[in-house]
Amino acid sequence: MKIKCRKQELMNSLNIVSKAVSSKTSMPILECILIEVYESSIRLTANNLELGIETGLEGEVIEMGRIALESKIFMDIVRKLPDSEVFIETTPDYKAIIRCEKTKFVIAAKSGEDFTDLPQIEREKNITISQFTLRELIRQTIFCISDNENNRMMTGELFEVKGNRLQVSALDGFRIAMRNIELKKEGPDVRVIVPGKTLTELSKIISGGVDDEVVIYFTRQHILFEYDDTLVVSRLIDGDFFDVNKMMSVNHNTKITCNNKEYLDCLDRATLVIKESDKKPIVMIIKDGGVMYIKADSMLGSLNEEVEIEKEGDDLIIGFNPRFIMDCIRVIDDENIKLYMKDGRSPAFIKDDNETYIYIVSPININTDAY
Amino acid sequence: MKIKCRKQELMNSLNIVSKAVSSKTSMPILECILIEVYESSIRLTANNLELGIETGLEGEVIEMGRIALESKIFMDIVRKLPDSEVFIETTPDYKAIIRCEKTKFVIAAKSGEDFTDLPQIEREKNITISQFTLRELIRQTIFCISDNENNRMMTGELFEVKGNRLQVSALDGFRIAMRNIELKKEGPDVRVIVPGKTLTELSKIISGGVDDEVVIYFTRQHILFEYDDTLVVSRLIDGDFFDVNKMMSVNHNTKITCNNKEYLDCLDRATLVIKESDKKPIVMIIKDGGVMYIKADSMLGSLNEEVEIEKEGDDLIIGFNPRFIMDCIRVIDDENIKLYMKDGRSPAFIKDDNETYIYIVSPININTDAY
Repeated sequence: MKIKCRKQELMNSLNIVSKAVSSKTSMPILECILIEVYESSIRLTANNLELGIETGLEGEVIEMGRIALESKIFMDIVRKLPDSEVFIETTPDYKAIIRCEKTKFVIAAKSGEDFTDLPQIEREKNITISQFTLRELIRQTIFCISDNENNRMMTGELFEVKGNRLQVSALDGFRIAMRNIELKKEGPDVRVIVPGKTLTELSKIISGGVDDEVVIYFTRQHILFEYDDTLVVSRLIDGDFFDVNKMMSVNHNTKITCNNKEYLDCLDRATLVIKESDKKPIVMIIKDGGVMYIKADSMLGSLNEEVEIEKEGDDLIIGFNPRFIMDCIRVIDDENIKLYMKDGRSPAFIKDDNETYIYIVSPININTDAY
Repeated sequence: MKIKCRKQELMNSLNIVSKAVSSKTSMPILECILIEVYESSIRLTANNLELGIETGLEGEVIEMGRIALESKIFMDIVRKLPDSEVFIETTPDYKAIIRCEKTKFVIAAKSGEDFTDLPQIEREKNITISQFTLRELIRQTIFCISDNENNRMMTGELFEVKGNRLQVSALDGFRIAMRNIELKKEGPDVRVIVPGKTLTELSKIISGGVDDEVVIYFTRQHILFEYDDTLVVSRLIDGDFFDVNKMMSVNHNTKITCNNKEYLDCLDRATLVIKESDKKPIVMIIKDGGVMYIKADSMLGSLNEEVEIEKEGDDLIIGFNPRFIMDCIRVIDDENIKLYMKDGRSPAFIKDDNETYIYIVSPININTDAY
């Protein structure tokens, strides 16, 4: 095998596939990146058996072949090469020679035959959305998944296609995040759970804008994202996801509208006196008068704040973990946000009028007589 | 005590004094910042008994007093306040109230009487240099100190004033760094060891340029840096520093000149195959022909490089820890550097013609027959 390519092109392709390289594994081949050189194309692949990524590399084919290189040292070397032409070739005794200007590295390689190919995915059921939308919907929901492997389903996100709507939901037992995306044309009926890790890595490598598309294929066991010259294949999580829509019945007695940034800054300050381990709430005191009072109190000190609001409905005193609300409103781009609450013990809803996003946050019970 | 000041001014002053706050201590008062309010001035102070910093704060004095606030929460609060007027006042029961716009924090405070004042320094023996020069000379030598507390002297730097020259030296047993600064006027004869930690913190807070001065006062036990509205006082390290000048006798047989960046990039790549723990060298093969060959070899792989040089004197094959040379040449701003070597077992010198900087690096013994 022998190829010639630009250092920067190689680095870009490596950055993409490296997201599917195993970091901790007892199988050294999973730490490798496969270089496959055909007559007129060069493909790079990484596969940790959960997630696999394949992408093209622009360059010149000098000799065909297939070789696997340990990802870390390969990437470290390429990163430190001069910004120039890079030659990569292999010797019959499985060594790789990497040349660039006056630099010549020789490192050990592995036979490409030991590498596990990506699963073949049937390209039938699919939808198309913009790369921008996909990246945004991941950013706006991913913080709501659980990292507790004891409940595998909560470590993933539900992708549900019905008619011309894609609904993506995540929940961790305290919060629910949901995004509704309108599709340009009707999709197949699909309901699958995609691992959170797949979505996290995916969102790091989709760089396109609103006019760049990604096609998403669904099979019984896999999901495939195809865009530009890249394929991202992931296993799905087995199981029947929670019926999120059942939890969505809004029946509020109090609604407030406030400035997102002002509210966020205020909650952020509250975290200074309320440590995560305390499980102490911030208390929101909602009355007429155009102002919501926010109080936090602990061994560390106390905080009193006022946030301007527009209020509809009943007075209410309600307590929250400030971080749960912050996580949600931080990813909302709207200048003003709307909170819908029933009472001090029922979850609060944060959503826009068209329900393109819905966040549900459980309150913390407090003794309202103290306020 | 009650004061009014701008949030940003307060943050700036806190950032300066916080460099002298203890992070791990059994004496909570050492984790505090003292606010002293006189008739017409506000002073902030921190003191960990090794290093003490005092600086002024622009603001309005409403009521005089003296109070100590726990540094971490105080700074976290100020950092998250809106960019506006901040009011700080204390209550008779040692609480501090921090107000800004619609935000009101109440935190615990400590009596200012428990705080240890900075030592009184006799302002007699002194020199004046620019803030830029002081910051540069620290940056260019500090990496050569040792972090091994078993040899206290090596954890500091020698400041030696003789006539109109300030010489600053650091060494760690493998390398020596030396900077020679010409003073505008004759200084007192001084030879003191300044703790490396003091210099590290100092270089973070001196922000001035070549026209901003800092006066350095020396006493038997302390060094005082005075600049702008800030005092930095540090204990000195007891003992008689190594006679660095004795190690300076240059007697070279080989001299090479090469491009700093090209050489640095090449050594940087060599670190990919030579791990710190290996104690393996890079080998420099210096012959006529305008090129120096660099080789590195380990279990991880091998590297061959060529660096253009101008050579004077004998051929030489010599081995080094690449990181030791990189640390030195990285802080040299000259485009080209000069290496002076005697043989494969003697330390190499990197210096400019005027000896404003001198670095000495010990080689690693190698079997030259192999090259």
